[in-house]
Amino acid sequence: MNSRSFIFAGAEEGPWRVTGGAAITGAPLANAPYVKVVPASEGTATQRSSWLLRGTRSNERYATAGEKQSLAAIQPPLGRPEATCAAMIPLRKAEAWWDLPQDDRRGILEERSSHIAIGMKYLPAIARRLYHCRDLETAEPFDFITWFEFAPSASSAFDDLLSELRASVEWSYVEREVEVRLVLV
Amino acid sequence: MNSRSFIFAGAEEGPWRVTGGAAITGAPLANAPYVKVVPASEGTATQRSSWLLRGTRSNERYATAGEKQSLAAIQPPLGRPEATCAAMIPLRKAEAWWDLPQDDRRGILEERSSHIAIGMKYLPAIARRLYHCRDLETAEPFDFITWFEFAPSASSAFDDLLSELRASVEWSYVEREVEVRLVLV
Repeated sequence: MNSRSFIFAGAEEGPWRVTGGAAITGAPLANAPYVKVVPASEGTATQRSSWLLRGTRSNERYATAGEKQSLAAIQPPLGRPEATCAAMIPLRKAEAWWDLPQDDRRGILEERSSHIAIGMKYLPAIARRLYHCRDLETAEPFDFITWFEFAPSASSAFDDLLSELRASVEWSYVEREVEVRLVLV
Repeated sequence: MNSRSFIFAGAEEGPWRVTGGAAITGAPLANAPYVKVVPASEGTATQRSSWLLRGTRSNERYATAGEKQSLAAIQPPLGRPEATCAAMIPLRKAEAWWDLPQDDRRGILEERSSHIAIGMKYLPAIARRLYHCRDLETAEPFDFITWFEFAPSASSAFDDLLSELRASVEWSYVEREVEVRLVLV
């Protein structure tokens, strides 16, 4: 299996307890009390889950050299001891987005929507990791899963981050988005 | 299954007969007399193959609006009756390529290597379709598979196309490349 591939499961037990969530756009996920994330090679650990999502970590698709350098200087890793809050946000974009050429997608994502700049404002408080689902061999219901981790004290900053992104031009291309809020057990 | 996902098989029978090929860089593929390409949902059709490769068609990663428009105006579909020659070229790039930011990869691919412009010179004679493998859940030996189709009269033009691309700066990042030449049975 690809060591960059992971399975997200809504399960009866797991390290992350679901504290809330909502379907922001489109259909919700089934209810589950816990979420676990396992390497794709350990897929048998996700039996009897109420939902399963798959995603692969990949190269950056939009960040320029300057942005990548700025991000690398301040972005924190996952798993910080103080980061006991998490959010899993799977999201699907419209076909119209994927039909756009690279420069137009970049223009909407950053020049018009400041996606990278907005995320940068909340660093290093809010750690973020992106997983890609759209090109997997399985028919996945989402294009991406974004996983966030932060300390309880950054919860309202995280709400602000989501509000800023969801008000952007880029988000007009989002046709399904689910938010699952979590705390470390 | 994802309807954009396909399986390429080196098989005992199939619509494409192998007429030649070579490992250009790195390890070769095992010998097989025929190649078939099937939707991922029909994977059982590829039992007893000497090799299997998987890939998914996806959005463009580098083409600008102008380039995409120019390509769309002249690029032919697969399956033209006269296009009885094909080539399958699986390829893997170095980690150093994937670590580059988007603008640096674009700069090497087009501004320094003319990858899109070179391909455009050979349109509409040589049809081309790209499949992505790097982010699949399975551990694939290649990052891409490119499939080309052309009439026998365009065979030497196709050789020229490959020579031009392989002489580019972009190709210095290629760490494995295999070429399989095919004719329609």
